[in-house]
Amino acid sequence: MTLTAISLTRRLASEGVGSLLLTATVVGSGIMAERLAGGNTAVALLANTGATVAVLAALIALLDPVSGAHFNPAVSFIQALRAKLTWTDAGAYLLFQILGCCAGALLAHLMFEAPLWQASAHIRTGPAQWLAEAVATFGLLLVVLGHRRTEDAPWMVACWIGAAYWFTASSSFANPAITFARSLTNTFAGIRPIDVPAFIVAQLAGALVAWALARFMFPMTKLSPAVSG
Amino acid sequence: MTLTAISLTRRLASEGVGSLLLTATVVGSGIMAERLAGGNTAVALLANTGATVAVLAALIALLDPVSGAHFNPAVSFIQALRAKLTWTDAGAYLLFQILGCCAGALLAHLMFEAPLWQASAHIRTGPAQWLAEAVATFGLLLVVLGHRRTEDAPWMVACWIGAAYWFTASSSFANPAITFARSLTNTFAGIRPIDVPAFIVAQLAGALVAWALARFMFPMTKLSPAVSG
Amino acid sequence: MTLTAISLTRRLASEGVGSLLLTATVVGSGIMAERLAGGNTAVALLANTGATVAVLAALIALLDPVSGAHFNPAVSFIQALRAKLTWTDAGAYLLFQILGCCAGALLAHLMFEAPLWQASAHIRTGPAQWLAEAVATFGLLLVVLGHRRTEDAPWMVACWIGAAYWFTASSSFANPAITFARSLTNTFAGIRPIDVPAFIVAQLAGALVAWALARFMFPMTKLSPAVSG
Amino acid sequence: MTLTAISLTRRLASEGVGSLLLTATVVGSGIMAERLAGGNTAVALLANTGATVAVLAALIALLDPVSGAHFNPAVSFIQALRAKLTWTDAGAYLLFQILGCCAGALLAHLMFEAPLWQASAHIRTGPAQWLAEAVATFGLLLVVLGHRRTEDAPWMVACWIGAAYWFTASSSFANPAITFARSLTNTFAGIRPIDVPAFIVAQLAGALVAWALARFMFPMTKLSPAVSG
Repeated sequence: MTLTAISLTRRLASEGVGSLLLTATVVGSGIMAERLAGGNTAVALLANTGATVAVLAALIALLDPVSGAHFNPAVSFIQALRAKLTWTDAGAYLLFQILGCCAGALLAHLMFEAPLWQASAHIRTGPAQWLAEAVATFGLLLVVLGHRRTEDAPWMVACWIGAAYWFTASSSFANPAITFARSLTNTFAGIRPIDVPAFIVAQLAGALVAWALARFMFPMTKLSPAVSG
Repeated sequence: MTLTAISLTRRLASEGVGSLLLTATVVGSGIMAERLAGGNTAVALLANTGATVAVLAALIALLDPVSGAHFNPAVSFIQALRAKLTWTDAGAYLLFQILGCCAGALLAHLMFEAPLWQASAHIRTGPAQWLAEAVATFGLLLVVLGHRRTEDAPWMVACWIGAAYWFTASSSFANPAITFARSLTNTFAGIRPIDVPAFIVAQLAGALVAWALARFMFPMTKLSPAVSG
Repeated sequence: MTLTAISLTRRLASEGVGSLLLTATVVGSGIMAERLAGGNTAVALLANTGATVAVLAALIALLDPVSGAHFNPAVSFIQALRAKLTWTDAGAYLLFQILGCCAGALLAHLMFEAPLWQASAHIRTGPAQWLAEAVATFGLLLVVLGHRRTEDAPWMVACWIGAAYWFTASSSFANPAITFARSLTNTFAGIRPIDVPAFIVAQLAGALVAWALARFMFPMTKLSPAVSG
Repeated sequence: MTLTAISLTRRLASEGVGSLLLTATVVGSGIMAERLAGGNTAVALLANTGATVAVLAALIALLDPVSGAHFNPAVSFIQALRAKLTWTDAGAYLLFQILGCCAGALLAHLMFEAPLWQASAHIRTGPAQWLAEAVATFGLLLVVLGHRRTEDAPWMVACWIGAAYWFTASSSFANPAITFARSLTNTFAGIRPIDVPAFIVAQLAGALVAWALARFMFPMTKLSPAVSG
């Protein structure tokens, strides 16, 4: 078992709050962008990307010292595989990540006076989309596992996700908990519930490939954020 | 009483100049964006966001060593609660923040040849908007209270505000002094005078929740900027 | 006379190359943006702002260790007033800044197959515009004189200029040499030759006010970039 | 021969993966942007620029400690001229850069369900375009050779390329391997195969001029990234 200086309760609060604010931003800025952009989807996605990237960088810098700032079961899964997180802790992380992400989607609905409970009708399926999710999560884990300086993680992760919003065709969910929560919103950022499982499989596949490559390419790197040590 | 190495006069100059330039940017870039965007509100808000975020980061880095770079009564209020600022100083800060913000709105009007004195007719009210303001100020204070390295505060605060412009529905005033000053401009960034008090209450509520959470989640963190120590 | 470790020749090369690349970016990205934006001026100015901000940050980080990365007679003038630069050196800087900026405008014309020699017909005059230029240059000098860490100057200056492009009504020339060079291009970034002198007077006035305020507000600050010491 | 602490195999993996992800971003975000922007080329190029800049910064920070993060034969060529890289290694780098870039273009096609093999019909030729490529590569090499702190290279290179996308008329390929790979995609980022050789000649010319200027202007600078030493 990995020792950590910070109590599990505080770490779970951190994962929950971070996941909530991240998802509220992803969903909320999507709603705002769609409402303001008047059909210009490129401008809407630019705004959605900017908001996501900005909040991601701030939240990672803020919460990495507390919980490692995963906000993402794919990251917690790989850290558990690497014995940087116990499997028990990873399970608890998973629970709070899912709860936080779902609460974030609800919070966005509340702020924008949209129906609280929704089911997305946004079709996102097919091999090209799955490949895109695998690539997006592959790159995310490569950055998580390969960065050298803790203080660079916030902007490196944010930059990767920002680029992946535009180049991966699925606009880069790259996170099983957010993928699940996005199925609860029938807005810009949504995904049909039935399309969720394949996205998650693709994400985990991409994460595992990144793990394998990182072991070969970064053998001497600091391979984990502060909390994992 | 907290000792500070810097005279109150200089700190008040810093709060006043910072609040002035921040508000001139918020209001001025809103006017410019609305004039140029030709009805494309999403593009206008993108420009307004970019200008706000950029000036906020620069002003915090510049003036944090002088006055703590609050520019925001909600921040000064929490720092006084935390005994990082005397209540007398907090009152003086408040005065210069309000004067600075109002002067900034007037300066923007002057530069854009708009009527100097205006009253906004922009309706911003209702529970969803108030929730949005509470969330925006909650996140701002969480960043202010939880960041570890002084040199990260500028970009972390700027990133949070940039994201909140898009995901909080009220486009994130998150600052009682700016909220008041925005009621003096009938432009893109305005708010009806009658809508101001509820916004301020929501902002202070959000700030208090952040304070409570920060005490639990960041007990070992450097909890204040340079000047507050 | 201030001693410097770096020969004047190299410093002048640095000021000339930096001024050239900066102006080529300002003018060139304006042309590109105007051509692509199809009348959407807000989008064009967003692109023009992004390119200017990016190149400014990169050039300052690159050339600050060589020449102080002024690229701006208003900055060199204040540094001479502060005895951080000899008046002779300031004169030589001025010459290379003007030559560099003009060459940059010509280079942009060459790259975009526009007539090499042009005179701008873009009217930019009146007290509101002059106030805007004074404010823009005031803020620029405040950042130059007040920043604490040399490594923060690139992004702080870039952020200020980026914000000022949008909130100062004149879209922030804030630089006498670039103002002169912009009179040589009848494109997005241009200014009528007859409007240049008043802009420069306003810029110098803003710079002097910033100098006075900085002496009061930042007495203990590192007040100069590396070369000036 | 230059000693390096990292095996050539790992360095080639780094150059290959980096070139692949960089090109997938350039091509993929171009496709996404063109599809979403509905004819608004300025918005499309803004998105394409943002994605390229973001991934470039992240990849350089991630892979510079492994291989120097060239992803660019022009950079490897100059580093070989400077004896920072053996000519044998430079040849191997070249091979993996080309393979990686071509694989990146194919990956983008796969993710966007476009025909796998394409030949671009996008005309990019003439002296103005060649001048633009020389300028873009000149500035890139100036940044690579002149930056002082390794940790600044990611954002400085990204900023230069971002600015050059807008001010150099050719939208700044600045990389022979990507230029070649772009001839394989008949999308936003493409270039006719017949136009490739002249672009590469212009890029190498710009790189050589930068090398000459850097030797004069930065004699005391750390002139190479970590791997080259």
